[in-house]
Amino acid sequence: MKARVEVTLKTGVLDPQGKAIQHALGALGFDGVDGVRQGKLIELDLAETDPEKATAALRDMCEKLLANTVIENYKIEVG
Amino acid sequence: MKARVEVTLKTGVLDPQGKAIQHALGALGFDGVDGVRQGKLIELDLAETDPEKATAALRDMCEKLLANTVIENYKIEVG
Repeated sequence: MKARVEVTLKTGVLDPQGKAIQHALGALGFDGVDGVRQGKLIELDLAETDPEKATAALRDMCEKLLANTVIENYKIEVG
Repeated sequence: MKARVEVTLKTGVLDPQGKAIQHALGALGFDGVDGVRQGKLIELDLAETDPEKATAALRDMCEKLLANTVIENYKIEVG
């Protein structure tokens, strides 16, 4: 089954990559961009077919590898 | 207004970052991960309040900066 994990920086954590995008957009003439934050999108193809088991496994994957839970939040979508 | 842009690699484009995640998950004991693709998630805060104008501006931003349309697809969500 297909699953998606969104990893985003927690509020308050500085995001130099987002700032760089914001400045580059300004330099290109796009006005009115008040903020940019960049996160990661991870799409997984799992052999597991039970959504509950898959979600539990994904939570484990996020805690152990996919996200740095000190500075990042993660959101799991299954199916 | 808030907007989200998802930038993902087109089908068929190699994704070494995704492969690295897949192998790392395998090494950590997560079996049954048949594929991993990594994309980017860009969250923007726009001064524009009209959804149609915002979408048009975002499409322009994607074509010019946010996505490499040779190898990447982008998806815009507004509001």
